[in-house]
Formats: sequence, structure tokens, C-alpha cells
Amino acid sequence: MTKKEKQQGITVKKFDDFGEWYTQVIQKAELIEYTDVSGCIVFRPYSYAIWEKLQANIDKLIKNRGVQNAYFPLFIPEKLLVKESEHVEGFSPEVAWVTHAGNTKLTERLAIRPTSETIMYDSYKKWIRSHRDLPLKINQWCSVVRWEFKHPIPFLRTREFLWQEGHTAFATKKEADEEAMDILVNVYNSTLKDMLALPTIIGTKSEKEKFAGAEYSLSAELFLPNNKAIQGCTSHHLSQNFSKPFNLQFIDENEKKQFVYQNSWGFSTRTIGIAIMVHSDDKGLVLPPKIAPIQAVIIPILFDKTKNAVLKEAKKVVQSLKGISVHLDDREEYRPGWKYNEWELKGVPLRVEFGPKDMEKKQAMIVRRDTGEKIVVKLKDINKKVNELLEKIQDNLYTKAKKFLNSSIDKADNKKDFLTKLKAGKLVLAPFCNTVDCEDILKDATGGAKSINTPFDKKELKNTKCVFCNKPAKELYYFAKSY
Amino acid sequence: MTKKEKQQGITVKKFDDFGEWYTQVIQKAELIEYTDVSGCIVFRPYSYAIWEKLQANIDKLIKNRGVQNAYFPLFIPEKLLVKESEHVEGFSPEVAWVTHAGNTKLTERLAIRPTSETIMYDSYKKWIRSHRDLPLKINQWCSVVRWEFKHPIPFLRTREFLWQEGHTAFATKKEADEEAMDILVNVYNSTLKDMLALPTIIGTKSEKEKFAGAEYSLSAELFLPNNKAIQGCTSHHLSQNFSKPFNLQFIDENEKKQFVYQNSWGFSTRTIGIAIMVHSDDKGLVLPPKIAPIQAVIIPILFDKTKNAVLKEAKKVVQSLKGISVHLDDREEYRPGWKYNEWELKGVPLRVEFGPKDMEKKQAMIVRRDTGEKIVVKLKDINKKVNELLEKIQDNLYTKAKKFLNSSIDKADNKKDFLTKLKAGKLVLAPFCNTVDCEDILKDATGGAKSINTPFDKKELKNTKCVFCNKPAKELYYFAKSY
Repeated sequence: MTKKEKQQGITVKKFDDFGEWYTQVIQKAELIEYTDVSGCIVFRPYSYAIWEKLQANIDKLIKNRGVQNAYFPLFIPEKLLVKESEHVEGFSPEVAWVTHAGNTKLTERLAIRPTSETIMYDSYKKWIRSHRDLPLKINQWCSVVRWEFKHPIPFLRTREFLWQEGHTAFATKKEADEEAMDILVNVYNSTLKDMLALPTIIGTKSEKEKFAGAEYSLSAELFLPNNKAIQGCTSHHLSQNFSKPFNLQFIDENEKKQFVYQNSWGFSTRTIGIAIMVHSDDKGLVLPPKIAPIQAVIIPILFDKTKNAVLKEAKKVVQSLKGISVHLDDREEYRPGWKYNEWELKGVPLRVEFGPKDMEKKQAMIVRRDTGEKIVVKLKDINKKVNELLEKIQDNLYTKAKKFLNSSIDKADNKKDFLTKLKAGKLVLAPFCNTVDCEDILKDATGGAKSINTPFDKKELKNTKCVFCNKPAKELYYFAKSY
Repeated sequence: MTKKEKQQGITVKKFDDFGEWYTQVIQKAELIEYTDVSGCIVFRPYSYAIWEKLQANIDKLIKNRGVQNAYFPLFIPEKLLVKESEHVEGFSPEVAWVTHAGNTKLTERLAIRPTSETIMYDSYKKWIRSHRDLPLKINQWCSVVRWEFKHPIPFLRTREFLWQEGHTAFATKKEADEEAMDILVNVYNSTLKDMLALPTIIGTKSEKEKFAGAEYSLSAELFLPNNKAIQGCTSHHLSQNFSKPFNLQFIDENEKKQFVYQNSWGFSTRTIGIAIMVHSDDKGLVLPPKIAPIQAVIIPILFDKTKNAVLKEAKKVVQSLKGISVHLDDREEYRPGWKYNEWELKGVPLRVEFGPKDMEKKQAMIVRRDTGEKIVVKLKDINKKVNELLEKIQDNLYTKAKKFLNSSIDKADNKKDFLTKLKAGKLVLAPFCNTVDCEDILKDATGGAKSINTPFDKKELKNTKCVFCNKPAKELYYFAKSY
């Protein structure tokens, strides 16, 4: 490897300096650009294309469920934001405020949406009259702003990020409960698994960690290679917590006035950062094929005499690959070795090397990004083989991540064991009282550990005392150091 | 018509009170909702679905041209916004400013993007090094905020609206010139015609009306039934006006440093409002089939005895209609007449009535929204006929609008004639000096008339003196009262 090629790649190892490694990967793979606005990043075309794939998948799944897209204002008048007391308490410390327009001071300052419950439900009250108007299921794709004062981490924690927010209203609590679970399991968790190759812990958040204003929050949680947990996405049941202050009432089938039951649920660009952290390696980005903007890159090996013939055949190889996105890298100013490094850095799942000898033998050399495995394939079989390999890579990335997740999980029945295992970077399942007070103290005592969630597939509660405060335990919860 | 049915519909005629008519149409057809944020509207699912169709069309056309989507921050630091002097002068009176986050005052106030030249080009300078990095073609779909102090009109003039903004950089002026024209003609004007059935005047804006910071602006302009012109969309050639202050330089093929040539171009939700104003009528919305979220609605005529059989056959009719979006309105709580009015109000291009007699005769009654024409069709021919009729409606709406546009155009060679025709609500083609001073005075003297553009298909300039100031004329320009 030449000095120039070394500079081209990632200069630190993933497990030597995780933070620096991540920063290099996302910049050198051209996923993001930092800006002069602190905590705000540019989603460059290469990461935005990933987001478009996630959008397409989720958009289809929710439209199949009768959800309609709409767009609500970016601005939320302060008087709306404060209508639900827990909600405003949760969000106001992070709200960006517009106070002036041109040279004019506004009479009421406007919040930039940190989430849109309040501005949306103010309209919902005009649209919901009768049980025939229900369920009402609306989604918007937009950006939201939460002015975090912690150190920003691109994708994971930025002051502006992209997401979808679904906001639904039902006549009955039962329908709302069912939808909250359906979205979490069959829309979000399936997207995390099928698209991003990410295994999760799914369950219900603690009282402390639930959404500000929710009755309960369901979540899909991830565990990262630096032994920190991170919330992937959430589906909240709001019960009548918003419908009462916003007066969302309908006439039911018995001509009685009732308040609606509501859910809200969101999936954001954060998940892209999680997938990068989980799958990528010392050579750079590793992308699951389902989200890769380029799934296979063809690199022709060009010599003066055979250049034209090889290029011509290489173009035929591109044509023969069906249903996948292929890029032919026919730049002549770079050597093949330089190109190999570049496309490895950019995480393209398959590299197809094709030179004059391959042309003679009617074959190509395929190299897997995830394992480095080299496979010689006859050109007549290449379409089938490439499609098979892409599926294998998708599966392999999931399986590897699942193995790591499983190996990170541990249990604790007593405080000493609990604290030792948390300190060792484990994801610890332990009985918990689920009170905000206890979790506040726990967080301080552990230097930032949080409850993750209580899994849906309940395990029998053997120890009936909270692992931390010794008061009666409610459920088993996962705990870990966390973003 | 019962009293209730009358309230359901539009209560004023389009040409009696155009403003009130428009306000009723957009609300009663469930396109928009007003909000507590002055000048900001909700794009309800029915209008957002139209936007999604326009997005899909434009997104495909620009991606075919090598444009990639990305996302840049909503916030623009003041020091970036002021870098190009004409640009900041044009936009700063309308900028919404964020001054606080949580309880903290920001050290530098942040503009909410009114357009993204400055925040984007600050990143471009990091990405452009060599001629090999060019052309750079990036687009983003987002909302922008321009705090207009004039009376807001939903879609046409709101403080927040949705758009796409393309920002491209080239090594040569020639490439940039060609792209600016290609986008205007082959992306924008074709979308206006093919999707929205809108005929336009395409040309170059005057010095006064060009984009703040552009060398020139190309535009597609529309003429509305209330005899006002409105700018539909624009494609700007920025020359090196931004690349110099932003230092966007590249090393050319001769190893020389050069500044790039740039374009920016945008298409917004404004065009939806224009299509509504042009095509709709006293019964409500009329939607061109290509943008209609529902293209045909089937209304079964239900009587107790034949209900099940008719519904069963009606579902078969739905199945038989291929490649179009069909809605079966099987609600039993409303009479057919009520439904007819509702779907006319919502502008659905075709209504299919299907009752027991139709069932017996294996036929259906199709009613065109644009003409009211009723057509009896055999069920075996219905797929073909419906598809044909949708095409006819699309054509008819365009033709009608084109006829109106043509009838609105007039010419003037002298000031008196010019002012008389402007006053009469004409779109007047006249020789013009194209100076900002003259147009400023002209605007005041005419109570708000503006130059529209100078058409690409130049007509011979017979009178060589400006119709208004008598100084030497440059080109023929269109003028009209305008939004």
C-alpha cells in the first residue's frame, strides 16, 4: 500500500478509537459534511440515497395501512406547545425559537417543530366530528429541530434531523394499542431487520424514559460495538393525554361525545448512523445490500492493447445484472488498486473485477465487501450469482450483528452483580421497580446507565425486588450505558 | 337541490367573487387547513398527494439528468447569508430569525432558509477541487420560509411552502446556460403542461424581476382567470456571482484555477394553487387526471333488494380498471346525489354510476367532471373507455386554458394603448427598455403591473422605443397585473 493509498483510507482502527473511526468513515465515505451551524450536518447524496430507500420502504408499509401523507407548518405557536404539560416540559429546553421576521419583532415567538403533536392536533379538532371520521391516520416526512446541548454525533444526535412522524386517532383504546404495536413490530422492526440488517431489543420504555406526554412508549433498541445502547425508533400510545387538552371529541355510534385515543410514532435518520456503526470495519463503510445506493461496482482492468475490448465486455456485464444498481468505474486516471480501496471505503457490497484474462475465460472475479471472499464466476451465471451473494451478505451482516447482541446480553439479580456487569459494558436484564426516582439515582450512580426497555417476550420475574433500590420490582428491564 | 346540499357546495360563483370562490374550493375540497400561524397552511392529504405526483415526475426527470438528492441544514448563519450582496438585499426583509434555543440566547442569529444558495455553496467549496468534480448537480426537496407581509393566499403566497431547489456547478458558462434552459423547458414547462395541464409563457425575466443574485432568470409564467399573471417557476443562471464570494474554484484541464459557473432552479407547491384557479369551476375543484389522487369514483346505486348484487358487480368494475386510481364509494349513509356533489366538489375526473338497471344491461354511466357529459359504456369496454376519457380530459383542460391564455394576450406600441390594455386585464406584449428605474415607475403608475418575461420565441422589434419611458427598447416583454 502506497502512502497516498493509506491517506485515502481510514487511519484508525474501529476498536482502537471508536469515535475517531466513526468520524473518518462518515466523512471519507462522503456521507456527511459538517457545517458552520453547530450540530447540523449536510446529508450528502450518498447518505440521502440511503434515506430515500428507507423512506420508500416505510412509506409503502404505512400507506398499506391506510396512512396518508400530509404536511403541517414548521412553526408552532408557543400557546399550542404548552397545552400538554408533560410534553412542553420534555421539549421546551431544546426548542429553537423564532422571534423576528425581517426587521419586525413577532408578537408571539414561534417554536421550530421538535415534534408535531401540538400543531397537528390543533387541526385534527376541526376534522374529527363523528365516529365516521375515525380512524384518522396521517404521516409527515420532514425535519425536526431539537437543540441538544450535548456533544453532537452525526446521524445519532444532531440538532436537526430527518424523520417521519405518524399521528393517528381512534375511537377506542384497543385499536390504538394494536396499531402502536403493529407499527413498532411490522413497520419499524421489520425495516431495521430487512433493510438495515439490524437486530433489536423490542419492548416498552420505563416511566422515566417514555415520550413526554405518552401513556406508554414502545421502542426498538440497538446495541453498538462500543457497548452503548441506543434507541432506534419509537411508537407511543398517547391515550387521551392530548385529546383532552386539544378537545378532540367525536360523536360515537350511540350519539355520545367521546375523546379519541391517539398514537404517534417516528423513525429517523439516526438509524443510518446505527447501521454504519454496527456493520462497518477498519477499511471503511460496510452497507447492507438493501440500502446500498450502489450494490455492485464493476472495475475493468485496463491495459492499452485490450482496453476497448475489455470495456465493451464490461458494459455487457453491467447490462446482464438485473434488478440491482450497478456502477461501472471506467475512470482511466486511477489504478485498479486505488479504486478497490475507494469502493471498499464506500461500502459497496460487491466488487466485480474484470480483466483481459477474465474476458478470455468468459468469467469475472467477485469480491465480497463483508468477508473479503473472492469468487470466480462464469459470465453466463453472473446475474444469478450476484443476486444470491447480495442476499447472503444481507443475511451475514444481520447474523454477525445478532451474535454480538446476544453475546452482550447478561442478567443480574443483585445490585453488586448489576453494577459490575454494567461497568463491563453489558446489556443487563434485571428486575426493576420502574419508578422515575429510582432511575434518576441509578443513572447518576452508574455514570449514565439507563433502562432500555422491558421486552415484549416477558421472562418470569424470579427476584421480586428491584435490583437497584430493593423496593418491589415490576418487570425485568434491560439496562446499559447509553446514548 | 336541498338546502343541505347547497351548503355542501361552493356558495359563490367563480367570476362573481374570485377570491371567496378560491377560498371555498380549497377548504371544502379538503386541500388545506388554516392554522394559528399566520400565513402558514396545512397541506392536507388530498393536496399533498398531488404534490407527491409532481415530485415523482420532477424527481425522475432530474435524476435522468444526473442530479442527486441531498439535504442541507434549515438554518443559515447570518455571516453566510450576507456573502452575496444582491442576494441578501433581496431576501433579508423576509427572513425569519432564530435567536434563542431553550433559555439560551444564540451568539449568532440563524436565518430559516428562504432559499439555500449560501448554505449549499459553503459546502460546495469543500467538494470542488478539480474539473473532474464537475458538473456537480444537487437537489433538495424541502420547505422554505419567506415572511411575506402581504396578504397570504394559500399555495400562491404563504410564509412557508414546499419546493425543490436544484443547485448545479459547471466548468463552463456554456454548459450552465444550456442546463438552465433544459430545466425550464424540458423539466418544468413539461411538468406544467403534461401533469397540471397548464399552458405557459416561457421567457427571460427583466432586470428588476430576476432572482436576487442571478445573471439572468428564466421563467414559466401563467395567466389566471382573474386576469392576473403569476410566476410559475424559475431557472436562474448565477454566472460566477456566487462562486467568487464563496470561492468555488477548480483546477481546469490546463492546471489553471477557475471559478465555476452556477445555476439554481426551483419548482414549488404554488403550481398546485395555479392549477386549481385555472381549471376549477362553480361546482368546485376540477383536477387534471394526471395529478388527481382519485381518477375515477364508482358510485353504486343501492336499493334494498339488489344491493348485494350491485355491490358485488361494482367491485368487479373496480378490478377491471387497470393502471388508474379508483375509489368505490359504498357508504350507505349518503344518497347518490349527495355523493355526486361531493366528488364533483373534490374534482374527481370521472364518475361511474352503476345501478340495478345498468347491471342488467351490463353497462355503466360515466360522467365527465370537466364537461358534465354523460356516456353509457358496456362493461366489457369500460377499461379502455375510462383510460381514453382520462386522456381526453387532460387534453381538454389544457386546450381550454390555452384558448383563454391566447385570448388574453394583446400588443401595444404606444403608452396610451399599453395602459388601456393593462387596465382591461390583458397580458400585453410591448417594447421595453428593461431598466429597473423604468419598471419601478411603471409599477407605481399602473397600480401594480409588472413585466412578466421576454419570450424565447422572439418577435421582431418594430417600435424601437420603450412603450413606457420612450428610451431605446431592448426586447418585447409581456406585462400584466400580477401576483
